Amino acid sequence: MAVSNQSQPTLARYDTGEAQCPYRLVLEHVTSRWGVLVLIELLDRSYRFSELRRAIGRVSEKMLTQTLQTLERDGLVHRDAKPVIPPRVDYSLTDLGREAAEQVRALATWTTERMEDVEKARRAYDEART
Amino acid sequence: MAVSNQSQPTLARYDTGEAQCPYRLVLEHVTSRWGVLVLIELLDRSYRFSELRRAIGRVSEKMLTQTLQTLERDGLVHRDAKPVIPPRVDYSLTDLGREAAEQVRALATWTTERMEDVEKARRAYDEART
Repeated sequence: MAVSNQSQPTLARYDTGEAQCPYRLVLEHVTSRWGVLVLIELLDRSYRFSELRRAIGRVSEKMLTQTLQTLERDGLVHRDAKPVIPPRVDYSLTDLGREAAEQVRALATWTTERMEDVEKARRAYDEART
Repeated sequence: MAVSNQSQPTLARYDTGEAQCPYRLVLEHVTSRWGVLVLIELLDRSYRFSELRRAIGRVSEKMLTQTLQTLERDGLVHRDAKPVIPPRVDYSLTDLGREAAEQVRALATWTTERMEDVEKARRAYDEART
């Protein structure tokens, strides 16, 4: 029995205990450092690659390319290469990606809103042990 | 500018671009392999260590100890060591932990419910490239 909570029957089914289990991989993609920021940014509108890179900031071209490819393969991001000169590629969320992005934004927002409480707890924990 | 979405002003403030930035660390703790399962399990009720280990399954004693310590330090899990013989230690969610656990459960549930769509997208992506 992996998860006894009866309202979450599918989690146990997908968590096979393997490091590469498919459920873990999707969770890791959408909560990855750049995955979080890409998904949140694309909730607003579609972006060209260079625009997206500027909007996110600090991300290397290679890392952003990898992040977008992973999310595209998962069916969360749509890549639209227009046959024009100069080439133009737009990235947007699929319907599935929009659902993921809304969940991830809720979690990321909660995390940042509660950072002060977490930092306070960490200080108290560390002080009790010194 | 890290995140232009005006409804998420705090994310950019906390995402300092450092690998060890505090916002990233909390997100990684709550979405870690065992962190997800511990938080979801504790939404139901408090657990003794050995009970929790059985409920989650496959987790080593060492990994579960580390996961619980990390979540306790973040202020998400409360460790209650009762001065009885034999020793008894109960783990439960704090109010902050309950908020985190609900967000994480929503994301994990979404991920498992949509796994078939993701797997279908992956097959289509891979087939288009072979």
